[in-house]
Amino acid sequence: MKILVMHGPNLDRLGKREPEVYGHETLGSINQRLQEAAAAAGVALDCFQSNDEGALVSRLGQAAGTFDGVIFNPAAYTHTSVALHDAIKGCGLPCVEVHLSNTHKREAFRHVSLTAGACVGQIMGFGPAGYLLALKGLVDYLKGGAV
Amino acid sequence: MKILVMHGPNLDRLGKREPEVYGHETLGSINQRLQEAAAAAGVALDCFQSNDEGALVSRLGQAAGTFDGVIFNPAAYTHTSVALHDAIKGCGLPCVEVHLSNTHKREAFRHVSLTAGACVGQIMGFGPAGYLLALKGLVDYLKGGAV
Amino acid sequence: MKILVMHGPNLDRLGKREPEVYGHETLGSINQRLQEAAAAAGVALDCFQSNDEGALVSRLGQAAGTFDGVIFNPAAYTHTSVALHDAIKGCGLPCVEVHLSNTHKREAFRHVSLTAGACVGQIMGFGPAGYLLALKGLVDYLKGGAV
Amino acid sequence: MKILVMHGPNLDRLGKREPEVYGHETLGSINQRLQEAAAAAGVALDCFQSNDEGALVSRLGQAAGTFDGVIFNPAAYTHTSVALHDAIKGCGLPCVEVHLSNTHKREAFRHVSLTAGACVGQIMGFGPAGYLLALKGLVDYLKGGAV
Amino acid sequence: MKILVMHGPNLDRLGKREPEVYGHETLGSINQRLQEAAAAAGVALDCFQSNDEGALVSRLGQAAGTFDGVIFNPAAYTHTSVALHDAIKGCGLPCVEVHLSNTHKREAFRHVSLTAGACVGQIMGFGPAGYLLALKGLVDYLKGGAV
Amino acid sequence: MKILVMHGPNLDRLGKREPEVYGHETLGSINQRLQEAAAAAGVALDCFQSNDEGALVSRLGQAAGTFDGVIFNPAAYTHTSVALHDAIKGCGLPCVEVHLSNTHKREAFRHVSLTAGACVGQIMGFGPAGYLLALKGLVDYLKGGAV
Amino acid sequence: MKILVMHGPNLDRLGKREPEVYGHETLGSINQRLQEAAAAAGVALDCFQSNDEGALVSRLGQAAGTFDGVIFNPAAYTHTSVALHDAIKGCGLPCVEVHLSNTHKREAFRHVSLTAGACVGQIMGFGPAGYLLALKGLVDYLKGGAV
Amino acid sequence: MKILVMHGPNLDRLGKREPEVYGHETLGSINQRLQEAAAAAGVALDCFQSNDEGALVSRLGQAAGTFDGVIFNPAAYTHTSVALHDAIKGCGLPCVEVHLSNTHKREAFRHVSLTAGACVGQIMGFGPAGYLLALKGLVDYLKGGAV
Amino acid sequence: MKILVMHGPNLDRLGKREPEVYGHETLGSINQRLQEAAAAAGVALDCFQSNDEGALVSRLGQAAGTFDGVIFNPAAYTHTSVALHDAIKGCGLPCVEVHLSNTHKREAFRHVSLTAGACVGQIMGFGPAGYLLALKGLVDYLKGGAV
Amino acid sequence: MKILVMHGPNLDRLGKREPEVYGHETLGSINQRLQEAAAAAGVALDCFQSNDEGALVSRLGQAAGTFDGVIFNPAAYTHTSVALHDAIKGCGLPCVEVHLSNTHKREAFRHVSLTAGACVGQIMGFGPAGYLLALKGLVDYLKGGAV
Amino acid sequence: MKILVMHGPNLDRLGKREPEVYGHETLGSINQRLQEAAAAAGVALDCFQSNDEGALVSRLGQAAGTFDGVIFNPAAYTHTSVALHDAIKGCGLPCVEVHLSNTHKREAFRHVSLTAGACVGQIMGFGPAGYLLALKGLVDYLKGGAV
Amino acid sequence: MKILVMHGPNLDRLGKREPEVYGHETLGSINQRLQEAAAAAGVALDCFQSNDEGALVSRLGQAAGTFDGVIFNPAAYTHTSVALHDAIKGCGLPCVEVHLSNTHKREAFRHVSLTAGACVGQIMGFGPAGYLLALKGLVDYLKGGAV
Repeated sequence: MKILVMHGPNLDRLGKREPEVYGHETLGSINQRLQEAAAAAGVALDCFQSNDEGALVSRLGQAAGTFDGVIFNPAAYTHTSVALHDAIKGCGLPCVEVHLSNTHKREAFRHVSLTAGACVGQIMGFGPAGYLLALKGLVDYLKGGAV
Repeated sequence: MKILVMHGPNLDRLGKREPEVYGHETLGSINQRLQEAAAAAGVALDCFQSNDEGALVSRLGQAAGTFDGVIFNPAAYTHTSVALHDAIKGCGLPCVEVHLSNTHKREAFRHVSLTAGACVGQIMGFGPAGYLLALKGLVDYLKGGAV
Repeated sequence: MKILVMHGPNLDRLGKREPEVYGHETLGSINQRLQEAAAAAGVALDCFQSNDEGALVSRLGQAAGTFDGVIFNPAAYTHTSVALHDAIKGCGLPCVEVHLSNTHKREAFRHVSLTAGACVGQIMGFGPAGYLLALKGLVDYLKGGAV
Repeated sequence: MKILVMHGPNLDRLGKREPEVYGHETLGSINQRLQEAAAAAGVALDCFQSNDEGALVSRLGQAAGTFDGVIFNPAAYTHTSVALHDAIKGCGLPCVEVHLSNTHKREAFRHVSLTAGACVGQIMGFGPAGYLLALKGLVDYLKGGAV
Repeated sequence: MKILVMHGPNLDRLGKREPEVYGHETLGSINQRLQEAAAAAGVALDCFQSNDEGALVSRLGQAAGTFDGVIFNPAAYTHTSVALHDAIKGCGLPCVEVHLSNTHKREAFRHVSLTAGACVGQIMGFGPAGYLLALKGLVDYLKGGAV
Repeated sequence: MKILVMHGPNLDRLGKREPEVYGHETLGSINQRLQEAAAAAGVALDCFQSNDEGALVSRLGQAAGTFDGVIFNPAAYTHTSVALHDAIKGCGLPCVEVHLSNTHKREAFRHVSLTAGACVGQIMGFGPAGYLLALKGLVDYLKGGAV
Repeated sequence: MKILVMHGPNLDRLGKREPEVYGHETLGSINQRLQEAAAAAGVALDCFQSNDEGALVSRLGQAAGTFDGVIFNPAAYTHTSVALHDAIKGCGLPCVEVHLSNTHKREAFRHVSLTAGACVGQIMGFGPAGYLLALKGLVDYLKGGAV
Repeated sequence: MKILVMHGPNLDRLGKREPEVYGHETLGSINQRLQEAAAAAGVALDCFQSNDEGALVSRLGQAAGTFDGVIFNPAAYTHTSVALHDAIKGCGLPCVEVHLSNTHKREAFRHVSLTAGACVGQIMGFGPAGYLLALKGLVDYLKGGAV
Repeated sequence: MKILVMHGPNLDRLGKREPEVYGHETLGSINQRLQEAAAAAGVALDCFQSNDEGALVSRLGQAAGTFDGVIFNPAAYTHTSVALHDAIKGCGLPCVEVHLSNTHKREAFRHVSLTAGACVGQIMGFGPAGYLLALKGLVDYLKGGAV
Repeated sequence: MKILVMHGPNLDRLGKREPEVYGHETLGSINQRLQEAAAAAGVALDCFQSNDEGALVSRLGQAAGTFDGVIFNPAAYTHTSVALHDAIKGCGLPCVEVHLSNTHKREAFRHVSLTAGACVGQIMGFGPAGYLLALKGLVDYLKGGAV
Repeated sequence: MKILVMHGPNLDRLGKREPEVYGHETLGSINQRLQEAAAAAGVALDCFQSNDEGALVSRLGQAAGTFDGVIFNPAAYTHTSVALHDAIKGCGLPCVEVHLSNTHKREAFRHVSLTAGACVGQIMGFGPAGYLLALKGLVDYLKGGAV
Repeated sequence: MKILVMHGPNLDRLGKREPEVYGHETLGSINQRLQEAAAAAGVALDCFQSNDEGALVSRLGQAAGTFDGVIFNPAAYTHTSVALHDAIKGCGLPCVEVHLSNTHKREAFRHVSLTAGACVGQIMGFGPAGYLLALKGLVDYLKGGAV
């Protein structure tokens, strides 16, 4: 089983950017934790970050056939990107949307998700731990578990 | 550590009600699975279901002092209840909102959550497995973990 | 054939409450007239009134298996209750929505129905006689008639 | 007692047009059934169909003095015609609005009725049988019955 | 100088239709008064009423070349007809929009005019006298007067 | 008979201000023309201009008892002043709203009138001649004429 | 003279719930203060709290005939309950709406009141003292005082 | 193969009406060009114009069985007619919507199409040539071509 | 302790203006009653009325340092004045907003308050007595009382 | 004559991505068909696809001087990109917008086009054949033909 | 070269009013700094402050002919005054809108500017220094500089 | 002191693109002028243009630590990019938003700024000179000047 982890815009600066909102852990550390959890579950993992909507669309386009599922934090593009909605649908893979913060507690323009409707589900508000929950949730889902 | 699990309106009929949307598992079975997972984690669990907005408000009001956190699927009240928003805030406990289905895939009136803004986070779309993810997420959160 | 008649909030005060809007007939009298018409048609009838959204949800939840159809005047909950929408859908029975007054002639917040979309149809503006029309319409519908 | 039955645009093609939505019965057959029911109740009936908003306005304008009430399915004009709203009000006759389908289950632009506010009441979702319910409801209403 | 006077839907029933809103004077009487005032001003006048949006569009289409200006009470079509907007613009003649009642005092759907933006100006709230003011205003306008 | 003519903000600059929109005639000239027409009709006229919403409110407050009617061009305050709406209603005199330009042809924020609903009627798009039409309309109205 | 005091959802937890918003005084203490003030004014008082929309509706339904007026803090139901709007209107008693906090300073969904339009008036932002102002206001109102 | 070409309101005046927007070519000339192109493709063509919404609805109603497809420029009715939406759907024939101008460059009320959702596709902005593109597109579509 | 009482536009005409809405008592009488109540409570009072938004802004600007609190009925400016919102905030004094009528029972444009969010609280619907309640509430508030 | 063909996000995956919506033909095949049709018409063609909004903006920026016109399927960016609107306008070339599917039949967020207003025209719903119609339409347009 | 500097409502209280939002510098000091900078640039300057919308309108009306340009901080009237929009346009002088704070960071009702569309440009968020930037920008603009 | 100047999409074509809107000066010339002004003020300057949202996000992400402030014209992305809002906030540097044209004079979709709320301030409408004002404003701001 192989899973693609995608991080959207500004997440490369995690740990440095507004730590009171997003915490002090870096993206490298999160990916490291995800790799360990994946290894423990016998799952291969590829991590990808881009600030570029088009690069994220392309990565999803190439994912079909290579991966079994996607964990995706579209960050700001969550609220503005129809292209990523189409890319998630178009890749044909089950995708779990993750957000570090609880977007319902923030500005009104973060209450709308254009991408969630193309996903299996959504996990938000748990900080980095949300990625690990998404990994567990997605792996169980792919194993045809009790979801 | 003690956690309150609350299920909102119509969830008593899980397994019988629109199984093509909500699946075939009953609420009793979900509670059973949650109890087992909680026991394995050394956590005590109380489960409560009500179709009544006021009963849910009251249960949250009594939870402070007795429980350490709440897992809550407000079901239809998610979209209409300011009283439950106030009750979650008022009990002062960290709460995780759970939905069986991905509400973003359904009718427009299910895209708005009046309760999520009062919660730590939200997990949706994983069916019954979402409760187990919420349990794991909440327990880690209460342990002051890496969230 | 067995039909459940449900009356929503404030309808217990019919005849006493704003008679210039809702008329002078009491709910008891309406139920009486419905029972007579049902008996004449060889149909059993249970009548239920509650001011409580949750009690109405529960009553619908218990109706499957016992009843063949539902006549429902959700009164004020028509405009605010997603829980009753879900309960009507969830009980799996054909339901006819009834309103005493023509809600299109009243305040703007009464022009929207959250429950009608879960029903077979809607009858409004005929006062108490609307229940009798609904009974006739539902019985014919259940008999696989010319609807 | 004399009642005018009016059918709006596209209803001349009933039975041929989207039968999965509107059923297989033709307008001729519906009118026939209405005539029989009216005769049984000692009521005279005139049936009129037009695709033309103006023709429907004119027919209503001529109805005062000749008829005692109107049964009207404005079809698509329900959602767009202020002229028919004015014509119903202007003819001074009690009017019952009928729809074959439950418009609340369909596209958002069918959830609004510009004509219902000018009517006594509304019956929808019962297919052709809705006309018969409307006839019964209107006759009782005109007899100063228990409405 | 020749002027076309056009009356929209339901205005044929003036005097008989909701006299508390529209007064007791008939359309014949208004046209008569307009003819007399026009004659006094040396202006020829054609009066036309139709309940039919298409017939009103056609009449405007034929007006260019024959008439010098138009006085138009589009009645209910004011609020719903883009076709009449286009027809007024398309005929290339100066048009004055007239309403018997003050539409700002009535239902919200009468506060919007789709046709006024294609006209020279608008006169409302003066009852039948509004037509005479429009005639005076239009004749002065056509004479290149002090407007 | 005595009529108050009121001109709102920026109308003191008529003739100098955006003549391509508002024409070349000054307010003095308009008032002059109004005085002549009033004299011819045996009507006394007071003209008042202010850029100040409060001054216009006060002038209307003092008008009751002294005047029989009001001609009012609230200019920009048309679209923003509830205070003038209340003042028109509060003075208890019939008021005619006048606009030089056709506001329906201009920016969207000029399509709404907060004051028109408190008036007898509205005349717009005739330039200065609109005031003369309003005078004629108001005098006839006050004489209990054919309006 | 007898007055019913009603407190809506979550108010049972006053003093414990978000004291920085709602203060430290308990509901028992407020009721005590109200009883003393009522006794001083020769007025009998019944206090009722419920988290349940239906129970509040029922209590209002039973109030007619027994009470002369109502003081009501609908709390969160203020913003979502048409049923309570109808119940206030239906009981036929003068009702004063009270809020501890100034809802205009809080989230946008608290700026709308569905219940205030059915009341005599509204008092908000004075904390517990608002109930005492309401008592004074209502007693004076019932005495046919200078309101 | 037989195709019905329908032109909506005001198109009879093409060439005379606002030529700076709609060009100088007449409808007769466009029909002529369409007939020639159709003949060259071995396709029979009927052309129909009406200013009347009802007549257009009726023509579509009669088209089933006689024609294989429809080319339709609903003009102003595009933005206001649910009846034509229903008629296009109801006739069961593939329909191509054509507009001479690019409606997205014009007033906001022309940005919405009520009819396009019932059509195969839409072609706009090419002037009269758009009809020829539509003919080519529809013929290829009917031949089961590469669309 | 010194309190400023401010009355907004049209309130100078109280008693004469729409008495069926605003009652028969004059502003002079209300001020008199307020002065007496203030004297009894050992509070000095200045009363000020203006129809002018700017004069009201200026009066608030001068109030800091001289007064301890403000009672303000902004009347129509409640719904349109950001300047008064800023002036209330800017003067740094606790302010109580008063309305004679219950604005929730009136036109939709009176349901929004731009000024209330800058105030301590709001009292509406009690007629002139509302000022006396506000005085009592404000004095208690300033004494650091039980609010 | 030289024409630039641009394909937006996710169109590189045509034939593989949701074939039930977008069909089975690949982008390579479409470009091939376009090249053949262009060659037959003596027109040179450059085809460009990118998932990247910025790359599409840049390509349009470089097109002026080199190309005579543009055929552009902005796909998902149609609904979200002001930058492409500006780029189309900025390049100064006539552009035809193409969509494979009829966007009016799909989700509401696909009913709005931010780019169409900057184009000559729009063709949608014909699948790959739409590109060929656009080529024909654009070539005729550039030849100063009968558009 | 002569420039008019205008300050809107509440700005007379600068330095005293909410210094955490608007800073500690007084309006006198700002005007002083502006006079010095203007003198250095050989520009004459008149400074004017009013809390009164009408006085600001009048001042703009008198500015034409005397001044070459205007620097204007309309403060709260920015968001509510069509009269000032018209006055800026009507005076025919280039105007620069200045705001001390960044209105986009504040309440939603401060995100809309009714006046900016009538100005050359807008500068906000620089505190008092914004006036000096506006002076520099306007002088360069008037010199026919590189703007 | 070191400042980053960023130019958004389509600005590389300045001077060539719609010169009637954006002027004839090229971006190279603007950067040249900015460099000279910066040198005169002893400030180092880096200029960066990209049509790519992601590239702009990345450049802002790398700016912290290297630069002291940012001057940013996000062009079309102003109205659509939450990612740039987050990037501005995330880089922790003071940023000044610049627009060549006055966006309030243009299409409605340019009246909203998603980025301005994350900036110190905004300057618009001065053409290229706006960049020089922004430089002056930002340098003074960074020197802890009189802003």
